[in-house]
Amino acid sequence: MTSPDAPTRVRLDLAYDGTDFTGWARQPGLRTVQGVLEEALATLFGRSGVEPPRLTVAGRTDVGVHAIGQVAHLDLAPEQLAGLERRPRGRGAGAAGIPSLARRLNGIVGQAADVQILRASAAPPGFDARFSAVWRRYEYRIADAEALRDPRARGYTLWHPASLKLGAMDAAARSLLGLHDFAAYCRPREGSTTIRTLQEFGWRREEDGVLVAHVRADAFCHSMVRSLVGACVAAGEGRYAPARVAGIRDEAQRTSEFIVMPARGLTLVEVGYPPDAELAARAEQTRAKRGLPDRAPID
Amino acid sequence: MTSPDAPTRVRLDLAYDGTDFTGWARQPGLRTVQGVLEEALATLFGRSGVEPPRLTVAGRTDVGVHAIGQVAHLDLAPEQLAGLERRPRGRGAGAAGIPSLARRLNGIVGQAADVQILRASAAPPGFDARFSAVWRRYEYRIADAEALRDPRARGYTLWHPASLKLGAMDAAARSLLGLHDFAAYCRPREGSTTIRTLQEFGWRREEDGVLVAHVRADAFCHSMVRSLVGACVAAGEGRYAPARVAGIRDEAQRTSEFIVMPARGLTLVEVGYPPDAELAARAEQTRAKRGLPDRAPID
Repeated sequence: MTSPDAPTRVRLDLAYDGTDFTGWARQPGLRTVQGVLEEALATLFGRSGVEPPRLTVAGRTDVGVHAIGQVAHLDLAPEQLAGLERRPRGRGAGAAGIPSLARRLNGIVGQAADVQILRASAAPPGFDARFSAVWRRYEYRIADAEALRDPRARGYTLWHPASLKLGAMDAAARSLLGLHDFAAYCRPREGSTTIRTLQEFGWRREEDGVLVAHVRADAFCHSMVRSLVGACVAAGEGRYAPARVAGIRDEAQRTSEFIVMPARGLTLVEVGYPPDAELAARAEQTRAKRGLPDRAPID
Repeated sequence: MTSPDAPTRVRLDLAYDGTDFTGWARQPGLRTVQGVLEEALATLFGRSGVEPPRLTVAGRTDVGVHAIGQVAHLDLAPEQLAGLERRPRGRGAGAAGIPSLARRLNGIVGQAADVQILRASAAPPGFDARFSAVWRRYEYRIADAEALRDPRARGYTLWHPASLKLGAMDAAARSLLGLHDFAAYCRPREGSTTIRTLQEFGWRREEDGVLVAHVRADAFCHSMVRSLVGACVAAGEGRYAPARVAGIRDEAQRTSEFIVMPARGLTLVEVGYPPDAELAARAEQTRAKRGLPDRAPID
């Protein structure tokens, strides 16, 4: 059905330690995840005679934010796809060379090993890593005074000096669930909606005492997860009652009652997509709803 | 009962990321865990007029090995103990200042945060961090081709390119349990016994697919854990049958059938001590059995 000149869309599943990256988005002169991966793609496809592929990502993570379940897509021209298959270990026809892209790209970017392609696969028809996504899930890790401060995990865990009350934090988190205007928890941005559906938000303590928040929403506005976590931490410290975090949300204004938490504790864990048959419709619907593409980091 | 001049013994519970340390033991010109901590003790007690305290440790970890449950002791002269209590936030008398030692030392060493004092406590009578210990427990983490290669955890997880068979590795591990001569799994050292009791050794896969070995013994000889793990990996790769690892042990000779695994995946997790009433007897018994103090790293 597709013309022989049509590009082939590839889905990449990615993980990275955000510590040494200036966020996802390519920026001149700075080491970013997109920059490192697109350079690797340019190295790999440099001799194909067509433009090297560019990446579109599900969650444009901010400076220092980590990911273990990031998703991106890229489009390969027929010449590029053929190039993957002509290489010594490639075999089969059509899209058969695509899985090898993970190994090949890791071989180029992998020296520092702070970004890894977990999987490369042929994307189903209509798939768009950004616009087909129906939800994003993040976690935030805090080692308070009651937790083991494991130096091995210090790169992705915030160390908090005092003890935090899990019950208050969890009650605060749950009170925010649902479809609301989260303007009080978003860095303001012209033309960008702050109305989101918070699908999951709760706290638990792991075996070693580390407090972990799981947060899932259809999408997040800028610095939203770190603001939500900051509001829960204030409740966990007893600085206000858990009910205050919903009060702040309903006032729909930025407040100094909590801080936006550091990026270090934050990881993008998973991106959710609808069944294959709904991918294209979902992407169209999201594009229409969001208006102009929103190119700043979402968290 | 104790004379007023008697030193007070303090137990420290420690955690460190071994990546940037040349092992535990102090060495001139190198950054070691003992070196960093003893310098911090010298800073803290520099004005007490007596020699700064030295550390005795339960497990002398080798270059690059991590710890989340390391134990050490030090002896404080009465002047030093009094110094802890005279400081602004100190309160109470006698040993009451000891817990504050954790916070004070972390304040001095904590900039890099790759070593943390988890707890400082007055040691029970007869306690010796090294000679009272009845067992040491290590873990070794491997992300093979079936596991999530989480770049956040790459500093303490070995990435193995192929898939490993959990069943074969676990069968190999269990076949080694008990009191045996582990000479085939020890780097030879004059005057040091290679007879050890392997109390626990098994493998499991964590939720993210990472293979984790738990190994517990009364004590380990040099590079023993990493050799045992290497033998299991060879079984997991199918290079020999699981039964071969006990065969190698019984031949009691070094072999090239497996490799000694890199330090990066290895963490000292816990040190076990007997009930307080048995601490002194246990220390005496261990000293007698071991003969000359063994000052090289144990793993």
